[in-house]
Amino acid sequence: MIYFNCDYTEGCHPKILERLCDTNLMQTIGYGEDEICDAARAKIRAACGRDDIDVHFLVGGTQANATVIASILRPHQGALSAETGHINVHESGAVEATGHKVLALPATPDGKISAAQVEAAYTAHVNDASFEHMVQPKLVYISLPTENGGLYSKAELTALHDVCTRCGLYLFIDGARLGYGLTSPENDVTLRDLCDLSDVFYIGGTKVGALFGEAVVITNPEIKPDFRYHIKQRGGMLAKGRLLGIQFDVLFTDNLYFEISKKAVVQAKRIAAVCKEAGCTFFADSPTNQQFPVFPDAALEKLKEKYVYSYWARVDETHSAIRLCTSWATKDENVEALCSDIRAIMADSAK
Amino acid sequence: MIYFNCDYTEGCHPKILERLCDTNLMQTIGYGEDEICDAARAKIRAACGRDDIDVHFLVGGTQANATVIASILRPHQGALSAETGHINVHESGAVEATGHKVLALPATPDGKISAAQVEAAYTAHVNDASFEHMVQPKLVYISLPTENGGLYSKAELTALHDVCTRCGLYLFIDGARLGYGLTSPENDVTLRDLCDLSDVFYIGGTKVGALFGEAVVITNPEIKPDFRYHIKQRGGMLAKGRLLGIQFDVLFTDNLYFEISKKAVVQAKRIAAVCKEAGCTFFADSPTNQQFPVFPDAALEKLKEKYVYSYWARVDETHSAIRLCTSWATKDENVEALCSDIRAIMADSAK
Amino acid sequence: MIYFNCDYTEGCHPKILERLCDTNLMQTIGYGEDEICDAARAKIRAACGRDDIDVHFLVGGTQANATVIASILRPHQGALSAETGHINVHESGAVEATGHKVLALPATPDGKISAAQVEAAYTAHVNDASFEHMVQPKLVYISLPTENGGLYSKAELTALHDVCTRCGLYLFIDGARLGYGLTSPENDVTLRDLCDLSDVFYIGGTKVGALFGEAVVITNPEIKPDFRYHIKQRGGMLAKGRLLGIQFDVLFTDNLYFEISKKAVVQAKRIAAVCKEAGCTFFADSPTNQQFPVFPDAALEKLKEKYVYSYWARVDETHSAIRLCTSWATKDENVEALCSDIRAIMADSAK
Amino acid sequence: MIYFNCDYTEGCHPKILERLCDTNLMQTIGYGEDEICDAARAKIRAACGRDDIDVHFLVGGTQANATVIASILRPHQGALSAETGHINVHESGAVEATGHKVLALPATPDGKISAAQVEAAYTAHVNDASFEHMVQPKLVYISLPTENGGLYSKAELTALHDVCTRCGLYLFIDGARLGYGLTSPENDVTLRDLCDLSDVFYIGGTKVGALFGEAVVITNPEIKPDFRYHIKQRGGMLAKGRLLGIQFDVLFTDNLYFEISKKAVVQAKRIAAVCKEAGCTFFADSPTNQQFPVFPDAALEKLKEKYVYSYWARVDETHSAIRLCTSWATKDENVEALCSDIRAIMADSAK
Repeated sequence: MIYFNCDYTEGCHPKILERLCDTNLMQTIGYGEDEICDAARAKIRAACGRDDIDVHFLVGGTQANATVIASILRPHQGALSAETGHINVHESGAVEATGHKVLALPATPDGKISAAQVEAAYTAHVNDASFEHMVQPKLVYISLPTENGGLYSKAELTALHDVCTRCGLYLFIDGARLGYGLTSPENDVTLRDLCDLSDVFYIGGTKVGALFGEAVVITNPEIKPDFRYHIKQRGGMLAKGRLLGIQFDVLFTDNLYFEISKKAVVQAKRIAAVCKEAGCTFFADSPTNQQFPVFPDAALEKLKEKYVYSYWARVDETHSAIRLCTSWATKDENVEALCSDIRAIMADSAK
Repeated sequence: MIYFNCDYTEGCHPKILERLCDTNLMQTIGYGEDEICDAARAKIRAACGRDDIDVHFLVGGTQANATVIASILRPHQGALSAETGHINVHESGAVEATGHKVLALPATPDGKISAAQVEAAYTAHVNDASFEHMVQPKLVYISLPTENGGLYSKAELTALHDVCTRCGLYLFIDGARLGYGLTSPENDVTLRDLCDLSDVFYIGGTKVGALFGEAVVITNPEIKPDFRYHIKQRGGMLAKGRLLGIQFDVLFTDNLYFEISKKAVVQAKRIAAVCKEAGCTFFADSPTNQQFPVFPDAALEKLKEKYVYSYWARVDETHSAIRLCTSWATKDENVEALCSDIRAIMADSAK
Repeated sequence: MIYFNCDYTEGCHPKILERLCDTNLMQTIGYGEDEICDAARAKIRAACGRDDIDVHFLVGGTQANATVIASILRPHQGALSAETGHINVHESGAVEATGHKVLALPATPDGKISAAQVEAAYTAHVNDASFEHMVQPKLVYISLPTENGGLYSKAELTALHDVCTRCGLYLFIDGARLGYGLTSPENDVTLRDLCDLSDVFYIGGTKVGALFGEAVVITNPEIKPDFRYHIKQRGGMLAKGRLLGIQFDVLFTDNLYFEISKKAVVQAKRIAAVCKEAGCTFFADSPTNQQFPVFPDAALEKLKEKYVYSYWARVDETHSAIRLCTSWATKDENVEALCSDIRAIMADSAK
Repeated sequence: MIYFNCDYTEGCHPKILERLCDTNLMQTIGYGEDEICDAARAKIRAACGRDDIDVHFLVGGTQANATVIASILRPHQGALSAETGHINVHESGAVEATGHKVLALPATPDGKISAAQVEAAYTAHVNDASFEHMVQPKLVYISLPTENGGLYSKAELTALHDVCTRCGLYLFIDGARLGYGLTSPENDVTLRDLCDLSDVFYIGGTKVGALFGEAVVITNPEIKPDFRYHIKQRGGMLAKGRLLGIQFDVLFTDNLYFEISKKAVVQAKRIAAVCKEAGCTFFADSPTNQQFPVFPDAALEKLKEKYVYSYWARVDETHSAIRLCTSWATKDENVEALCSDIRAIMADSAK
């Protein structure tokens, strides 16, 4: 079977593995205070073009989301999120387990919310006679790219940043797949922009070349103090913290993070183009490494003889949307095989 | 000003006050273990026709909701609720503060959810490949009457009970305004039915004649143990617990709870009838003590010179829905005055 | 039976009851925003001699403690408390339920902790190499009087205030029995001192004349914003909020709160003097309304034929400490009876 | 510098690294449901001699502790633990963050608590008149070996198991350093014993050869359901779950876990013997890989020119206890160097 179901089906980029082997018997202190972590932090600061940011390494995305949100909010405050946002749907209530409501907003098909929606939610809250009986919106959570592959433009991010500033809200960007967003041809946002436009974001490693790991970047000085206590309390402080340093150090050496992301996006777009030619519509437009083509159910039956995909949603009685992902590890020959099989299956299906 | 904005604008029924005075200097032990509380519990058991139920007195509704839900659910489980449900909107995140997600379902205009919706939510969860990444629905929260004045019929409750039984869900009924529901002419549900069809519910006192207080009735033996610890932990264990016992003892003597509720419903229906005659439409149908007529904004300007109402929702550019409540304390002469003023204002407005 | 076991065995001071009767059918808005609550807040501000304090009314002590602490601390922070502190022992884990550790310090027999202990705990934390792996002390919780009847002198409070200022800690004073402390002849602290020396404290009503209710006074501007959301979230926002306003308005009219407290302290001291003369030692010294005499077990057997007391602790194989409380409601004739019976029983026991 | 400060200063056992390299580009499904995890689980079941146990892989110890405890306890229940227990001291309040109090019991110098203490705590609770106002003890947390290197004998574990059974408590064993305990010559406990005598325990990987990872073994059928939801909610579900499977599969192949542990214990005992000969006393007796010798402060000044150790505690004005750890990675030549330097430094210090 060939896996296109998600972007975490393999281990890590060979250069990371090599570095793990090279450093394996080196002795360091624990918990991310070693020199390798320091070096990785410095490289991320350089890539961001900002010396004043705090960089912390956590193991996974759910952990990063809950830790960041719980470190910022007071108990009566909640996080605005797209209905389809990862924190609202796929984290088994991790944010609620820290005591906070996720305030869901309707999302576009590609998983985005707008500055106007945020402002409306904020305004509705402060103007409600019962405002003290309601959860106070205090943080905006978005993902870039979104769970449905969508991208925020620089203009959209700037609008979100501006409304957050006006309304006293924090902007937090989940970058679990950040590489695949920043290297999309449709993207006009840089790492530096993320620093300047958000209060905190993270650079996903798990889905972009690492075994695991997310680099949380805190730009707002208000939320920097004591963050390491929160990492520890939420179970995210790795004893052998250098493992995270090693991985991000490699990823941020010689532009590796972006190189491998870019290739995956090219592959995903090739698959999307073939799907389109073959007559598929799309559940959501995605300029990134996740694609959401709609297939006749009969075609899916054939596809799954050889490929693993993620079932996404029923579209009508005879059609379903699936998710096909590429990643830093996707082999060109597998992309070719998939494209050719999609063509054949769809041609067949059209008969 | 005459208040019709809610059902907690006065103190308590004079008979309760009288009893508070009579017992004031009597000495009892604390925390609800005194003989007056025992007597009140016995009367509630009798009214329910069930000897095997546990009855606990809590101070308020938000407290009762959070305490009950947190006592039942494990951390990964959530409560299904109407989007308009009190726990989802008007408790400042009290349920989330205990760690649990409220899983909101679209509601009817009068605030109800159906057995079919519950079953669909449950089924979607267990059939989702990512089910372990999602909050597990484990409890159904409904209010009777709802926040929008709606009533569940016995058939609807039975259907909810049945789906909960089939799916292993708990059914919890918020009865903050229970008296006004059970005494509505449209109602076909009894206290005994609530015992037989739910796992836990409460009989609201705060809005139905008491100074404060909600009587939580636990029928499911599984959730009975240790409930008093939860009351204490959530801040609901009154030192002078007898105050709750006194109030419920009076309310459940000589059918007082139901007598006073019934009168308020009659008054509310009279107001509704006058609104209708005067040309108002309604935001939601309500056979209980809350009414949601829609008025021209200009008419509301006049109405508020003399009356306090709750602004409910904007309906269109020139019309708004308001809430008008009666209660055990509403005076007939105030109802008459309101009716006559509504007629006059609407007649004026039609010119 | 005559109850000396605690200070919440009766209802409320007759003047409060009278006022509840007088205002019963008056209509007000809810949730503590009515004019009676405003008046009560003004009187408390006047009694404190500070115009700049926020006053909030909550229903009970456990609720007040958890609400205040959770509103102040970030998730990684804990509350330093005497081992015997109410939050550490007798609140069913209410503080932990909001996510915070209670950091217990050894207490004096009369239930106090010192500035030196607080400083040592703070210093140990910041100097520990693993500080980020430990709960950060951020708030000091004391009760005045303590659970064991002890009083902090103005010098002791000032020392605690100073160490808190130096170390960036908040000082929170639980005043569930505040009246009985402030009116003790041994006391040299005023309401104004509490304002000036703490960040937040509360004036207990439940045990000092009210049916229920604690008036939380916030003096530190940092912790004032949004406190009402926290009250609501923790289940402490009474719908008929005026009930709290009424009670505190009466208590803070014509010095009633202090008059009734003072009388109870005199009675308690009379009982203590008799115990001492009769040969009892004391579990802890208390200059307030709670007394902790040690009796032979045989004497207690006789005492309990007529009186209800609280069993406090076993002292040796044949002796136990008990708690005897007076309150605003304690009748002089009952004090006389108790004193005379203690004399007789102890005389008998000495034979 | 040579590190003896802890047992997580290197990466992982070379065989694990080799296996990571071999499997790196293999495609698997995520979240621990792959075939490698299944194989590892099977090997652990075999090593335990029990087919009926559930095995789950989590990333780290703090995470495992909080996840297990929160999955078992209801909100009003707490965990009995040695005062020195990891959950009580070194997890930044992770257990409290899930809402539960850690009920600390005085520990022996080597970090243990006894069945008698547990029974006394349980009995005191149920016999306290205010029991519902106190946190209910429901789980006993011990670590094996303890944080201070101590071991529970089979007799001690059996006594704990028996008291837990009698009192309805759960027994949870933190095995972060389990290998170093089970392979100590003083140990008489087996993996099978742990299964039979506890409700849940874990086999530590992070400190015993793995890059990271703890294998949680659930033996009590009551606490098995839905555990994966809890892992996800607490941020412990690794996307590339196979990484945990790979590591435990290697560790439980050809007895590797025990072989490497045993060697480290031998090394630690050699260091301890040299310390003793050289005149050191010990802060706590430890038959495992952690040793706690007491040195003159002057000697420590010299020692730290070449070695990194953990400062443990001040013993008197001129002496301090330190922790010296060995691990699967400790080189014999480093042990030799340390032993020889300790001898020299102590000889010098005696002059």
